[in-house]
Formats: sequence, C-alpha cells, structure tokens
Amino acid sequence: MKKLILLLLCFFCLTADAQQSDSLIIAKLFNQALTNGTCYSRLNYLCKNIGPRLSGSFNNEKAVDYVQQLCLDQKLDTTFLQPVTVPHWVRGEKEQAYYKVNGKKSEVAICALGGSIATPKKGLSAPVIEVHDFEEMKMLGREKIEGKIVFMNHPMKSSFVHAFDAYGEAAGYRWATAQNAAKYGAVGVVVRSMTLALDNNPHTGAMGYKDTIIKIPACAISTMGAEELSNAIKNNSLVLFCFKQSCEVFPEAQSYNVIGELKGSEKAEEIIVIGGHLDSWELGEGAHDDGAGVMQSLEVLRIFQNLKLKPKRTIRFVAFANEENGSRGAKQLLVLAKERNEKIIAAIESDEGGFTPRGFSFNGDSLKMKNVMGKQELFYPYDLKYWEEGYGGTDINYLKEVGALLIGFVPDSQRYFDVHHAATDVFENINKRELELGAGSMAALVYVLSEYGVNP
Amino acid sequence: MKKLILLLLCFFCLTADAQQSDSLIIAKLFNQALTNGTCYSRLNYLCKNIGPRLSGSFNNEKAVDYVQQLCLDQKLDTTFLQPVTVPHWVRGEKEQAYYKVNGKKSEVAICALGGSIATPKKGLSAPVIEVHDFEEMKMLGREKIEGKIVFMNHPMKSSFVHAFDAYGEAAGYRWATAQNAAKYGAVGVVVRSMTLALDNNPHTGAMGYKDTIIKIPACAISTMGAEELSNAIKNNSLVLFCFKQSCEVFPEAQSYNVIGELKGSEKAEEIIVIGGHLDSWELGEGAHDDGAGVMQSLEVLRIFQNLKLKPKRTIRFVAFANEENGSRGAKQLLVLAKERNEKIIAAIESDEGGFTPRGFSFNGDSLKMKNVMGKQELFYPYDLKYWEEGYGGTDINYLKEVGALLIGFVPDSQRYFDVHHAATDVFENINKRELELGAGSMAALVYVLSEYGVNP
Repeated sequence: MKKLILLLLCFFCLTADAQQSDSLIIAKLFNQALTNGTCYSRLNYLCKNIGPRLSGSFNNEKAVDYVQQLCLDQKLDTTFLQPVTVPHWVRGEKEQAYYKVNGKKSEVAICALGGSIATPKKGLSAPVIEVHDFEEMKMLGREKIEGKIVFMNHPMKSSFVHAFDAYGEAAGYRWATAQNAAKYGAVGVVVRSMTLALDNNPHTGAMGYKDTIIKIPACAISTMGAEELSNAIKNNSLVLFCFKQSCEVFPEAQSYNVIGELKGSEKAEEIIVIGGHLDSWELGEGAHDDGAGVMQSLEVLRIFQNLKLKPKRTIRFVAFANEENGSRGAKQLLVLAKERNEKIIAAIESDEGGFTPRGFSFNGDSLKMKNVMGKQELFYPYDLKYWEEGYGGTDINYLKEVGALLIGFVPDSQRYFDVHHAATDVFENINKRELELGAGSMAALVYVLSEYGVNP
Repeated sequence: MKKLILLLLCFFCLTADAQQSDSLIIAKLFNQALTNGTCYSRLNYLCKNIGPRLSGSFNNEKAVDYVQQLCLDQKLDTTFLQPVTVPHWVRGEKEQAYYKVNGKKSEVAICALGGSIATPKKGLSAPVIEVHDFEEMKMLGREKIEGKIVFMNHPMKSSFVHAFDAYGEAAGYRWATAQNAAKYGAVGVVVRSMTLALDNNPHTGAMGYKDTIIKIPACAISTMGAEELSNAIKNNSLVLFCFKQSCEVFPEAQSYNVIGELKGSEKAEEIIVIGGHLDSWELGEGAHDDGAGVMQSLEVLRIFQNLKLKPKRTIRFVAFANEENGSRGAKQLLVLAKERNEKIIAAIESDEGGFTPRGFSFNGDSLKMKNVMGKQELFYPYDLKYWEEGYGGTDINYLKEVGALLIGFVPDSQRYFDVHHAATDVFENINKRELELGAGSMAALVYVLSEYGVNP
C-alpha cells in the first residue's frame, strides 16, 4: 500500500511538474513572439515590396521566391517547393459602373468578381432588377428577369455575433448569383459586397459558373453603392445599370506550395502541418488575407529555432498556393501526403486575419479533439478561451482524408470583413501586437502537439 | 420522499427555465445593440461636432449639454446634472522641441504633459541626460543631473500580454519624473510616451507636482523621437534638448456629472451604476478614451427601453466629469451616494476603449463577486470569458466605500495604447461592431445584476 501511495505521489508530482514546465515554455514562446518577432516586418515586406499576388501573376512568383528564401535563411531542416498548376485570371482595367435614372448617371464603386468574364468592350447596359435571395429570383422568374441585370442585395447580417457566421450565411450569393440569374435570362449580375461595414469599397472574391449554363459577367458593388442603387430602384420605375470590366482568363500557370520543416527529435514521422495561403486578391495587398497567416506560421518555426527548442514531432510549414480561386495547393499537399504515405497528425491554418487571438476550432476524430482540448487551460493566461468543434480551414480541410486533426486558428473576427478582398486589406491595417500574439498562440499549440501528439 | 423528489424536480425545472429565459433576453439585448444601435452615431457626433473636451473647456460644457439632451430625448425616468468643480489647465500653443548635436538641430514630436507648467516663452534649453528608471536617476544624483533636462526613456514592456499591465508598470514615470528629477536640480523633463507602438505621436496624460518640490516643465516625446534622442545621446558627449510649451492653469471651473436613471420595478432602492467619463485629453477627440464608454453606457439604458424591459433594480447612467486630471466627478458621485444614503449594489465602468469585449474584472466583497461570476456561462456565446478579480475603474473605485461591487468592463487591450491620450484617438479608429458588442455585453451584465442583485 505504501508503495502504491508513493507511486501515485510520484505520478502526480511528475504531472504537476510537466504542467509547470509546459507553462514556462509557453511563456517563453509568447515572449519571443512579442519581444523578438519577425512576422510583422516580413509581412511588411510581402505587402509593400511584393504586393498583391493572385495565382498566375508575376507577384505570386516573387512571393514564392521570397518565402522560400526566408525558409532557407532560417536554416530549416528541409525547404522545398511543391509544384502546383494554378488558374490564371486577370482583372484587367479598373472597372467602371453607373446607374441611370431619367437620363441622369450616378457612378458607383464596383469590382469584377474573381473568375467573371468581361463585359463587352463598351460595357454592358440593361434595366436592373433588385432581389434579396435565390427564392425571390425564382419567384420573379424568366418573365421579369430576362434581358436584365440582376442586383443581388443580400446584406451580411449584423445580428450575428461572429462575423464569419454572417459571411457563411451570405457568401453563397457571391458565388452563385451569376449561374442562377443566367438560368432566367439575366445578362449580368451585380452583387452586394460581402462586408458588415457600410463604406465605399467593393469586395471581390470567387464566383463560379456552371458548364451547362451561359456565362454572364458578375461584379460586386460597395455597400454604400448598394444602398444607393436600392433607393434608386425603390423610387423609380426604370433604372438602368451599366458596367464595364475587362477580365481575362489565361492558360494555367506554374506555382508552388512553399514547404519548410523542422524534423522531430523523437517521432519525426508524425507531422504537424501549419500554414496559410500565399496567394491573394489584387485589390489590396493580401495583408490579413493571408499574408498574416503565412508569416505567423513561419514565425512559429523560427520561435522554436530561436529558443533552441527541439520539437519531438516534425513541424511542417506550408505557404499554400491558390486558395482564393482554386485550392490547388491544398489538393497538391494531400497528393504529397498520400504518395509518401505520411502520418500527418494535425494541421493548423491561420486564415482568418492577423487579429487578437481568441482560440482554436477543431474538426476531426472526437477523441483526438477532446484530448488536445484537454490542454486548453495552459492557454488561459493568454486569453485563449475559444476551444470549439468547428471549421478547420480551406487549405487544410483536404488533409482530413489522411486522418489529420484539423485546427483553425481563431482570432477576433469583427474587423476581418471590413478589409476582406478589398482595397483596404493593406499592411497599415495590421496591428503588430495582434499579429505577434497570433504567432505566439500557434507556437504554443504546436508545442503541445509536438510534445504530446493527438492520441489520448 | 416522492414529494421531495417532485419539489426538487420543480426547482430544477424552474432554474432551467430561468436560465433559458435569461439566455433569450441576453440574445435580444445583443441583437438590439448590433442591429439597432445608437452608440456609434452618438459617438460620431460627440467626436466630430464637439471634439476634445478637457475639464474647464467650452467643449466640455457642450458635451455635458449634449449628453444631458440625449438622456432627456431618451425619456429616462430621471435626468439631472450634479455640479462638480474641476481644474482648468490649458495646453496653449502647439509645443515645439528639438535636440541639438554639434550645432545641428533635429526636431522631435512632443506634447506637454497634463498639468505641467510652461517653459520660459523662448523655450527651455539645457544638456539632456537619459535615464531609464528612478533608481538610475538616484544613482546619478544631483552631481550629474543639476541644470539638465532629464530624459526618462522607460518603454512600456512589450513582453506583457495584457497591454494594461504594461501601462501599469510604466505610467508612474509619466506622473512622477518631474517631481523626482526636480529634487536633483533638473530644469525640465521629457518622458517617453506611454505606448507600445513605435510611431511619431506624443501621448499626453496627467503628471503631478509636489508642493514641497520646485515645479519644472514636463513633456512627452513620441516613441520614435525617444529612440532618435537616445541614439543621439549614445553617440555624442553633449546633446542639448530644447522645448517650448505655453500651458496655463486657470481658476477652477464648473462642470457636471450627467446622471440619468431607469427606476427599478421591484427594488428601486438598489442602484446599479454604469458609466464612463465625458472629459478627454485634447490632442485627439476622446473617442476610445472615453467617449466610447459614455455612449456604450447610455446605450445600455436605451436597449432596455427599446425592448420595454423593466429592470427590477434601478439603473443609473453616469457620464463622469474630470477623470483625466482630478477624478472630481467620481468623488462627487460618492458624496451624493453618502448624502442620500444610497444602496449602490454595483458599479460598472467602461474606460478601456471601445474594442471587442472580452469580459469583466471584479473588485469588492468576495461572496458577491463569486455570486455574480457564477452567471458567466450565460455570456460564453458572446466570447465573454474573461471573469477575474481585478481593477474596477477610476470613476467607480470611490464607490467601494459605500459597498458597491466594482466591475470593470474589459475589452481587448492590444490597440488601446496606440491611441491613448494621442492625436490618433479619433472616431475613425472606432469599429462600429466592436463598440456595439461592448454595449451589448454591458447590457447583458446589467440585466443579470438587475434581475438577481449581487448577494448570494
């Protein structure tokens, strides 16, 4: 009996010790992030010296080179480029739009949606009809819609507490209004921008056509423009909408996932993926979406190196190619994992902006999830109290197929859609400490995963 | 036994019902704040049509009138002004400063600290000596300091996770460098601005003299200026610092606490105070500090009114006078409470900026604290998970004397000191949703307090 008590005592002491030492290490990780960070200056370079970097663009190549060089400078154990073939859509000249009532033209701010076709060179002009959802469009039918431009005025709902929930409810209208409206004979669509802010910035983003349905041009209008247009329609029997965009699709291009690793010291075969996507829409600089995620992820490895902290499991940094209009990088990483028969135990993505961290959302095997969530108290001193089952991330979701526990990094969401896919997604809207705290948070989680794995 | 079981069942059902109905009401409060809010537009008016409003200024009077009118328009059960005599310090002309090395002048951005005396009209010029804390100043002593300008270069430490902890560690140097340096014969002081950002904005704030120690002029220098000056001192044996400020103290002035109440329907004698301070430093517009807190607090009452939700206990809104340089409004509210023998059960202050809410910090009787904190799960859907013993607020702390449970509203702190007391504390740096979520959070807490009181 005495032996048993002693053994139990030993066990509890060891556990308490481990917890204490984990706390200390996590404190060091955060301290590095906050006092000796590089992600802010690296993101500055990416935004200001390279800039926007849509798949297929020259900037995208430059960004790949830059991030590869950072990995090499950092002397990771492995650095390599994984080839990814990507679509190459180009916006063309700055778009123009106005609505016309009784001969009077009023300009509004628009941008082509990503993937849209061009209008005729002189622009497209037609009577505009306002709808608020697909149901309403269906009820109006071909009779009311044929030959017209459909104005989809479906606002993101401010009643949602989490901005991503509001986006989730509304973003389908950006993707599918053109393909739906074309069925009823519409000649073009203008979609209210996906943002909770009332301002004059149009927000782009991917839209999709269907092979069986005629392609019509699609643009996004700023929320202020949407309000104005809606009022004009309310007060006049005939409103014309005219827009001009010159987008083009070029042959697919060569891009790359940039991959860098720190080899695990004990279980090198178990891999923890951490990353963000390097491509970005071209209206802003892709600062929050998703230069932030890329630089935070790489920073996690740098923090380990700087502290001479050897991870027990392998940490793989990935700057994913082509999240915005194809997810080709994500798919290719899955190909690699399958070819090599890799054991990717977990994958973390930062793609919700470089804002103050709140926690993580998990997707995958419930026992693994529960096990990792069991460590959450270690993160409470850093106000990381959001630990919920939920979304992983567009770039990592494919890895579920090889059994990875998917983990989305969750920062504060309130300001994200102010800048998302708009001209305002620039470095000036990044807060240094918020960005660094995100890197610290992910470093802490990677530490826990590399120490303990995911299995109970 | 059966009866007991039935009774117990009833109890649990009732409790569950109450919780559910509390949840529903809290959801409505947030919904009002997010979809039908007024605090953003009211704050816009306060910032842009009135502007900065230091105690004793004409703007401060205008702000008092405006907030009183809002209370009257809102048809609160009671609206009144409580007279408060306030100090009247005026900054005067825009300050100027440069340092001089080998005859070469380099301008730096400074501002007078609040309460400082003026320099001579031509400015004050003297050799500058850099120190980092009071200990170092003491070691240098009169021999090294006499006749010089002391440059207190004590940065807020970026290693702190919570920005207010970094402020707490450093702000004493703003307050007391002048009185400490004067003891050793310094002729003036320049203090590194209290911010974690590296930029060119000087941050003002209160400093204090002692009656027994000679008064010397004190200014704050931007963090970039501080770095530059520090480098100049490092690389040169003699650096002169010259600054000019023309602050003046005028006779004390009349101001007011603006007070408005919704009477409790069941226990009107139990009062819940909620407020922020209306005065602000004059470099910016007092948007985050603390126009936000005032408008959020008043919004709480409006939300109750709009939902026709009768609070069981009395809710008292207070726009406090003179927090920045005297706390006279706070002291007067305590006088009122004592004169009337009021039962102020709790006091909530929002004075940490209009950023995304994280939770609340509590100060007071531990049983009451524990009791209120026991309701925290109702707030989890809104990511309000910070519930800690801690600071109440400068304006409410005096109410501890009458037994109030002090509750500080805790928003995200990372960006606060970027703008605090600086020219950047303007309406443009307010995010509508963040501000509104704060109002929703406080409305939810006031609801819980008004339903259940504070006693276990």
